[in-house]
Amino acid sequence: MQNNDQIVTPWSVTSNEGINYMKLIDKFGCKSIDGKLIRRFEQVTGKKAHTWLRRGLFFSHKDLEKIIDVYESGKPIYIYSGRGPTSEAMHIGHMIPFMFTKYIQDAFDAILVVQMSCDEKFYFKDGLDLDDANRLAYENAKDIIACGFNPDKTYIFSNLETVGGELYKNVVLTMKNMTGNQIRGTYGLTYDNNIGEFSWPCFQIAPSFSSSFDNIFGKNNVTVPCLAIMAIDQSPYFRNARLVSEKLSNRGYIKPAEIHTKFLVSLEGINTKMSSTGNNLVIFMIDKPKDVDKKIKKCFSGGRDTKEEQQKYGADLTVDVAYQWLLYFLEDDEQLKEIAIKYKSGQMLSGEIKKILSNIVQNIISKHQENRNKVSDQVLKHYFDAHKNFDLTIKRKNEDIGEYNEELYQNYGVNFDPYFGLYN
Amino acid sequence: MQNNDQIVTPWSVTSNEGINYMKLIDKFGCKSIDGKLIRRFEQVTGKKAHTWLRRGLFFSHKDLEKIIDVYESGKPIYIYSGRGPTSEAMHIGHMIPFMFTKYIQDAFDAILVVQMSCDEKFYFKDGLDLDDANRLAYENAKDIIACGFNPDKTYIFSNLETVGGELYKNVVLTMKNMTGNQIRGTYGLTYDNNIGEFSWPCFQIAPSFSSSFDNIFGKNNVTVPCLAIMAIDQSPYFRNARLVSEKLSNRGYIKPAEIHTKFLVSLEGINTKMSSTGNNLVIFMIDKPKDVDKKIKKCFSGGRDTKEEQQKYGADLTVDVAYQWLLYFLEDDEQLKEIAIKYKSGQMLSGEIKKILSNIVQNIISKHQENRNKVSDQVLKHYFDAHKNFDLTIKRKNEDIGEYNEELYQNYGVNFDPYFGLYN
Repeated sequence: MQNNDQIVTPWSVTSNEGINYMKLIDKFGCKSIDGKLIRRFEQVTGKKAHTWLRRGLFFSHKDLEKIIDVYESGKPIYIYSGRGPTSEAMHIGHMIPFMFTKYIQDAFDAILVVQMSCDEKFYFKDGLDLDDANRLAYENAKDIIACGFNPDKTYIFSNLETVGGELYKNVVLTMKNMTGNQIRGTYGLTYDNNIGEFSWPCFQIAPSFSSSFDNIFGKNNVTVPCLAIMAIDQSPYFRNARLVSEKLSNRGYIKPAEIHTKFLVSLEGINTKMSSTGNNLVIFMIDKPKDVDKKIKKCFSGGRDTKEEQQKYGADLTVDVAYQWLLYFLEDDEQLKEIAIKYKSGQMLSGEIKKILSNIVQNIISKHQENRNKVSDQVLKHYFDAHKNFDLTIKRKNEDIGEYNEELYQNYGVNFDPYFGLYN
Repeated sequence: MQNNDQIVTPWSVTSNEGINYMKLIDKFGCKSIDGKLIRRFEQVTGKKAHTWLRRGLFFSHKDLEKIIDVYESGKPIYIYSGRGPTSEAMHIGHMIPFMFTKYIQDAFDAILVVQMSCDEKFYFKDGLDLDDANRLAYENAKDIIACGFNPDKTYIFSNLETVGGELYKNVVLTMKNMTGNQIRGTYGLTYDNNIGEFSWPCFQIAPSFSSSFDNIFGKNNVTVPCLAIMAIDQSPYFRNARLVSEKLSNRGYIKPAEIHTKFLVSLEGINTKMSSTGNNLVIFMIDKPKDVDKKIKKCFSGGRDTKEEQQKYGADLTVDVAYQWLLYFLEDDEQLKEIAIKYKSGQMLSGEIKKILSNIVQNIISKHQENRNKVSDQVLKHYFDAHKNFDLTIKRKNEDIGEYNEELYQNYGVNFDPYFGLYN
């Protein structure tokens, strides 16, 4: 791998010097999320922009402005997310898209569908039993539910149990409109792959069309636009979803919109994303506080080797994992800025910033565990119930979104400077 | 194509000089059905061998003897057949496997499942609308029902409506255990094909495992052996089904058994099978008597050009389509033999033999139309009902199967001489 090279596919994310996200926006044909779009989002939804929008962590999209337009016109949209269950415990990197999805569900007061793709993981993971994959779907669903999704607007479904009916019809329409060459080109799959792997993208694409959910939107209703929330590496899947929907435009199918997050960097360094494979420093949602603390203490630091050197030269924030994580988990911009200045200038030590992060993460984890424990079998069943009364009403939020400050908003979204000018 | 070359795939059957079926048995790894197996079938089932078995028209199998053993032990087996609906009207060549399946259902008093593969036809046929394919499934089902299947032992299902649940689980298990290379090798599909075409074989294979039908056999029941009835060109599909079941043997999956028919030759000549694409001389099950008569009059004849020549030289039975069809549709061996001798020797004219065939076929078609007209919506619904009370009882037949005559049975099955020694 040469300098600057980066590999981002749905199965692998590596880079030599941090991911260049602007390059990815270009490569994947996306648009960046800027302050103007953020302000419009706030004005139409009546909801204050999420920290992760302001700070450019959810940084990229396709057709988000159309979703906002539809919402403004009083018509419904729906949100699509998914999870391939592979292990008992989800880690904090897995939770980021769901935490944000909870926020987006509130903002649009929208239906959310969550695909649990036991089939996918069975195809792609050696040694995973199909029944185990199915069981893990329910375990992982508890973590997802713990994010606080509206139970009457949220439908979680396991492919293994639900594919069929209108959903399968959309799988069939998708399969007919995707070639082997597209699969090879987009995902790098070949004749050596199994047919499950080869056809899987069609099963992921089908829920992008609202007619898959006749149980929610009524029979043959293709008119509800879909907003899919994902890490940027999943975007190739949805590029294909958009291509398929173009081919089905004579049936009234609409291209799914997308919104993309950056990767939560690994505790071990900024060049890989947090991943539970072959990596010890992973914060799982089942971790005990002291384990969280231990792991964060070990995370890669941009600080100097000794106290004296740190005080003299200061830290390199751009490679400091604890600081990168604070961008996600410390909501207060002023406090973050103060930390940045002090740590960069040597007034704060690496241990101090790690302590701040550790406390915040411990708090997130323990709240999550509390919420997850409340997910009874009955609650779980309700989320998976295809035939409950879905609440299709839409109520606009009325949060105080503040005055419009052009200068401020110009620095939001992709233009956000995480280092507050310290490197200029 | 060189002399003797024959191409037999699920999508194409061509040959220069008639299909060499013994070569196909070899190529596809099947076994021939001989008089010994036929006698054992008669003894165990208590049912007289069907004309098509005696005459070697259903000529090849895999594991049929195992199916007979299981039946003998008092345990159930089930039969699997299918139909890809492409047109309003089925032709008489389509009906052969179903007519025989009706006979086999009676013989084993067995459950029959019939897969209507709207999805398959949608993938493979340009310009066929998905909803149309679905509608045609019900039209074609009426023709199938008209064969007289036991309504409480027969389950007809449309993939489009039924894939899901346990059936989908078996699709998933199949997909994981088939590679792109297998699909390419068996079916000649490439990256240029659409994903539906590429993955379709897995959807055809899944009903070969009894656990797909928890509605009939109970949850997770993988123990009921499957007998699939098909034209020989479909055997490659089931070779893969058998390979997959080997890989799933740790779950108790059993290889499906097979029984194969020869092709009903085209009215235009013996080198192609009857097919509704690009061919005018096709007998459809909706044809009027006079149209049947007209078409049969035009069929390719092995007789001579003039009455005088015919009387002098006689006919060539091996290329005479009317005679080939009588092998299927004239049940009386003695009458057939008489016709063979007289026609071969010039005592009968081409027009006479065509007339005999025409009367028989008109009779079959009009009986079929009578039966089809009796298929009310309610009857149709019953056959498609997944949740009716399936009759799982097995009652042995007690027909007079006659004395065992070794010499006679030696000439049954693949050893049957359709020309009664006239070419020796």
